Amino acid sequence: ANHKHVAVLPGDGIGPEIVDEGVKVMKAVGDRFDYTFHFSFGLVGGGAIERLKQPLPEETLTQCRKADAVLLGAVGGPRWDRNPPHLRPEKALLGLRKELGLYANLRPAILYPGLESSSSLKPEVLEGVDLMVVRELTGGLYFGDKRTEKTADGLKATDTLVYHEHEVERIVHRAFQLAQGRRKHVTSVDKANILESSRLWRSVVERVAKQYPEVEVEHMLVDNCAMQMVRRPADFDVIVTENLFGDILSDEAAILTGSIGMLPSASLGEGTFGLYEPVHGSAPDIAGQGVANPVATILSVAMMFRHSFHNEEAAGMIEKAVREVLASGARTMDVASPGALALSTEEMGDKVVEAI
Amino acid sequence: ANHKHVAVLPGDGIGPEIVDEGVKVMKAVGDRFDYTFHFSFGLVGGGAIERLKQPLPEETLTQCRKADAVLLGAVGGPRWDRNPPHLRPEKALLGLRKELGLYANLRPAILYPGLESSSSLKPEVLEGVDLMVVRELTGGLYFGDKRTEKTADGLKATDTLVYHEHEVERIVHRAFQLAQGRRKHVTSVDKANILESSRLWRSVVERVAKQYPEVEVEHMLVDNCAMQMVRRPADFDVIVTENLFGDILSDEAAILTGSIGMLPSASLGEGTFGLYEPVHGSAPDIAGQGVANPVATILSVAMMFRHSFHNEEAAGMIEKAVREVLASGARTMDVASPGALALSTEEMGDKVVEAI
Ligand SMILES: CC(C)[C@H](C(=O)O)[C@@H](O)C(=O)O
Ligand SMILES: CC(C)[C@H](C(=O)O)[C@@H](O)C(=O)O
Repeated sequence: ANHKHVAVLPGDGIGPEIVDEGVKVMKAVGDRFDYTFHFSFGLVGGGAIERLKQPLPEETLTQCRKADAVLLGAVGGPRWDRNPPHLRPEKALLGLRKELGLYANLRPAILYPGLESSSSLKPEVLEGVDLMVVRELTGGLYFGDKRTEKTADGLKATDTLVYHEHEVERIVHRAFQLAQGRRKHVTSVDKANILESSRLWRSVVERVAKQYPEVEVEHMLVDNCAMQMVRRPADFDVIVTENLFGDILSDEAAILTGSIGMLPSASLGEGTFGLYEPVHGSAPDIAGQGVANPVATILSVAMMFRHSFHNEEAAGMIEKAVREVLASGARTMDVASPGALALSTEEMGDKVVEAI
Repeated sequence: ANHKHVAVLPGDGIGPEIVDEGVKVMKAVGDRFDYTFHFSFGLVGGGAIERLKQPLPEETLTQCRKADAVLLGAVGGPRWDRNPPHLRPEKALLGLRKELGLYANLRPAILYPGLESSSSLKPEVLEGVDLMVVRELTGGLYFGDKRTEKTADGLKATDTLVYHEHEVERIVHRAFQLAQGRRKHVTSVDKANILESSRLWRSVVERVAKQYPEVEVEHMLVDNCAMQMVRRPADFDVIVTENLFGDILSDEAAILTGSIGMLPSASLGEGTFGLYEPVHGSAPDIAGQGVANPVATILSVAMMFRHSFHNEEAAGMIEKAVREVLASGARTMDVASPGALALSTEEMGDKVVEAI
């Protein structure tokens, strides 16, 4: 039997509800492939701030380090929005990413048939959409020096965008490797007409690209990409970009899938270890009502099987089950047609388990 | 008679073609309102690099300083893409913005009836779209310190994002003032969960907002805004944001208008002086063919009458003419339906002049 230790961090808002469904699906697929799981549950984000006065307790980090993979729900909520930076739930995400060396964030956006009607884009524009944003996750403005100073002239705030050559290299390699298993096209997104860091980025992409002669590479400015992504989304395969651009573009890509409730993510480092979480947030407005869409979390579990357990078959089984369930017309509130009956979070998870 | 001195900088690619139509429309409206114009033509961008070895010659800057307003076409092209930063056409834009103190960039996105079919968004999503991106134009990553250094570990590139309190204040005031004349709603976009500069931005917005009690204010994270802008665009009125976020979001907003060939802009400082230019670039691929859409430039001329000449009536006359011409079915290539006959740049300009 395959034994796997999975750290489960439900977090805030709808986090616990959706993570339940993720774990349920993990177990169901695990049964089919003879896995045994050890789950260790940890505190993170707002909940951890309340109980332990820190968003990312050392204990949680230790649990993650011992695990083969981490499943995270979501963090944050209005209650902590006015906290000082070190006591904000988001700080936990940054801490996990940095401490666990998770520099490669994979955010695939696939249009599942039947969800065209939930998107604001025309169905013909959405046809064939299947892209992957590969976002650098441990550099750039997120982690550079920051400060606010008093000057004679009032306050002055500074953030710093830093990239080292080797940081760019490893993420770009990852993008090209992923493209090799896909449609062999990489769009590297930067702002090279303005930023020094983008010029470094672009030169590294050009150098690395030579090692993948079968992959086509294209450079695109971030402003143009923000437009092209909604103009001709089916033309993109792999998009690789720095941390903040990736944050913006992957949220925008949610529109291609019908709902941000559909977008999974994997955050990877050098080995097989990875952290898996839905791209959407903790949605405090609907927390506790059992109406959240668990699909992004379930698809994140599929990514866990693919990237951390190297079990493509199990990953594919989950994705196929989601596809079937959606094709059968099952929908949570966020993607249901107006007036149609929507399933609860749990019912949606059950449907996927049945289909497995 | 109203005498106005307008500096005209056609620039590269399609720049000269579209600027011709802008000038034509300016003259036509000027005749109706008894203006006399003095036009001074200047070199900028790639053309200036070729002839004078600098993207923004001192002479051009002097011309602009003497003028009441500037009409700019577009700059850039593949020929100069590999030049060192100080010899790139874009440097001219940055120079004009900074030297002329043009800190407020207004980019309105309006859906003209009949253009729904050119957008990738569903017509029902586009209904009622009328938003204005107010972008800070002389601060942030564009103008902060930049450098690339050799380290023991390879190259390291740094860009700096700096905002001073007073820089945020003046642009935020401008946004609230604009909102007062519109639907009285301001969305301030930042990344306050990560950036120190965004936290300063947000605190200034909250303070300034108190002076405009009739205007509703909302804070939105940039990643969420990139999604909401294409999900429910009609809900936005004025969007105010820092330089790079504004660059990205205003290009994305092009999708709401059917074509980036429809988006005008005004760059303003403290007085009535302003620089007016289409948001689109120099489009080297179609340059010299007479097929570019001149509407963004023509609408920029309308903004010149509104913001620099304080002639709302003349501005409205141009916008109404554009509306009528488009409603009559006249289209340039970028927005024509497949197979339909497209007008040339000049024909489109003539139609607008006729309608005036
Ligand atoms: C919550 C926030 C810090 C985070 C980010 O900006 O990375 C989120 O938007 C994401 O995309 O995971
Ligand atoms: C050409 C480039 C420097 C410029 C910018 O980024 O500001 C352009 O994209 C714009 O939006 O005016």
